[in-house]
Amino acid sequence: MSLLVVGSVAFDSIETPYGRAEGVLGGSATFFSVAASWFDRVNLVAVVGEDFGKEHLDVFTRRSIDTAGLERASGKTFRWQGEYAGDMNEARTLDTQLNVFQHFAPKIPEKFLGSEYVFLGNIDPVLQLHVRRQLTGARLVACDSMNFWIKGKAEDLKKTLAVVDALVVNDGEARMLTGERNLKRAADSIRRLGPRMVVIKRGEHGATLFADNSTFTVPAYPLEVVRDPTGAGDTFAGGFLGHLARTGDLSEGNLRRALVYGSVMASFAVEEFGVDRMLRLGAAEIEERFREIKELTHFDV
Amino acid sequence: MSLLVVGSVAFDSIETPYGRAEGVLGGSATFFSVAASWFDRVNLVAVVGEDFGKEHLDVFTRRSIDTAGLERASGKTFRWQGEYAGDMNEARTLDTQLNVFQHFAPKIPEKFLGSEYVFLGNIDPVLQLHVRRQLTGARLVACDSMNFWIKGKAEDLKKTLAVVDALVVNDGEARMLTGERNLKRAADSIRRLGPRMVVIKRGEHGATLFADNSTFTVPAYPLEVVRDPTGAGDTFAGGFLGHLARTGDLSEGNLRRALVYGSVMASFAVEEFGVDRMLRLGAAEIEERFREIKELTHFDV
Repeated sequence: MSLLVVGSVAFDSIETPYGRAEGVLGGSATFFSVAASWFDRVNLVAVVGEDFGKEHLDVFTRRSIDTAGLERASGKTFRWQGEYAGDMNEARTLDTQLNVFQHFAPKIPEKFLGSEYVFLGNIDPVLQLHVRRQLTGARLVACDSMNFWIKGKAEDLKKTLAVVDALVVNDGEARMLTGERNLKRAADSIRRLGPRMVVIKRGEHGATLFADNSTFTVPAYPLEVVRDPTGAGDTFAGGFLGHLARTGDLSEGNLRRALVYGSVMASFAVEEFGVDRMLRLGAAEIEERFREIKELTHFDV
Repeated sequence: MSLLVVGSVAFDSIETPYGRAEGVLGGSATFFSVAASWFDRVNLVAVVGEDFGKEHLDVFTRRSIDTAGLERASGKTFRWQGEYAGDMNEARTLDTQLNVFQHFAPKIPEKFLGSEYVFLGNIDPVLQLHVRRQLTGARLVACDSMNFWIKGKAEDLKKTLAVVDALVVNDGEARMLTGERNLKRAADSIRRLGPRMVVIKRGEHGATLFADNSTFTVPAYPLEVVRDPTGAGDTFAGGFLGHLARTGDLSEGNLRRALVYGSVMASFAVEEFGVDRMLRLGAAEIEERFREIKELTHFDV
């Protein structure tokens, strides 16, 4: 199959109780594509600046991610600086320099237009819609969003939601988008806006998939140390859509397995800063955590 | 089998976004025993005042709960007043009148001394230890605690923990007791104090059982409306220990099923104020939610 992601590539500077990292490769499209690359070929659409070197590009090419849609613009790459304190569930942004990302207008290379699985990372919903409309052969389009767009571009976001199959958001965003505190009601409300599937991520508490007549909950893999939660959500989406693209199977049973792979990949991402841990993976490790989550949740009726 | 609970019986006045209730029957021993009564015979040890009427006693006797250990003291029954706002995970206490509970010295009727399954509700750890020592034939003793004792009587609590089999606490309490934010490490730390099992409740996010070489996570049953979370934790413990007492089976598989029954019972408790919803239950409803949690968590490897 073919899996397309549109989103950000950034340099992140992060401080957590476990240490700090300066200018490490990050951004939604980075975390998504590196995670998904363990499952299938990934087509990347994003923008970087002149400070994006060969060593950064190599991260993608080593994972066989197709960078034909990685535009190089004049100026600097998007930079984000944040810190996590006591409650590692939420970052405090210290600085954001959008740089070339500010005028990002995603251009989908012609060879990507037939992509069947699509993830519209957290960008302006107007751009998400523009990309969505070009991908007429897609079997499953998922999108992410955030409080900035939910508050500032609610009507545009609704237009995007009307034409996507899945929304992948965290619990706070689902509540903000719908005004419903209860997550089941929030998911029902989102589904009425268009997406037939809603994945609500709950950080260290796992994630829940709400689909037709079916709800499935997966816990987070229990780690002793979470060093850096940055990118966990996009990584989760990468595992989820990666498994779906690899198998081409949208049955309920396979959607459930895909959600477990999302949780597995997120657990690796947060063990280290940036995407380092995900670059050192092996397929056997992924399968081992998949089975451990089975063990963690299984009971006989 | 036989199941003993020592804890509080109270009159609660509660306000939530869904309404208010004045002077409804509550307290840890009440929620625990009503929940557990759906599984096995329950022996209740608690204290009430002169304002505790026949209509209140009937709640227990209708559920075949043995009230031989329900002491009636001169004075008023323990009263608690609290409210829940936006985040229904935590109550704000408005008023506490300990009344007869202030001088509660649990007396275990001789016929209860052979109880095999025991829940030491959230009372002074000195009293918990005193009760524990009398129950020499117990197969499984579980206890609860709270921030008040963790801060104020840490050494006494540790003495109690050294002689119980299971600690059932919420995530905040586990963190406070151990100084570990990470729940896996907090559970390991608690197990080194004595209990071979630690159940950490996470409100709307479910609960996790940490035992020898085994970790099991159950989600909360997804409800559209949570009217009153008061007593959810004690109800959870009632379902958990109730199932263990009913079956007399402490195998790992059965501990897992017991945790699911805990989640099932808690889901009923929070649907209405006080124990009302649990008094209107049927065994078939309990089994139905048990199967629904299976459906909510099951995936094929």
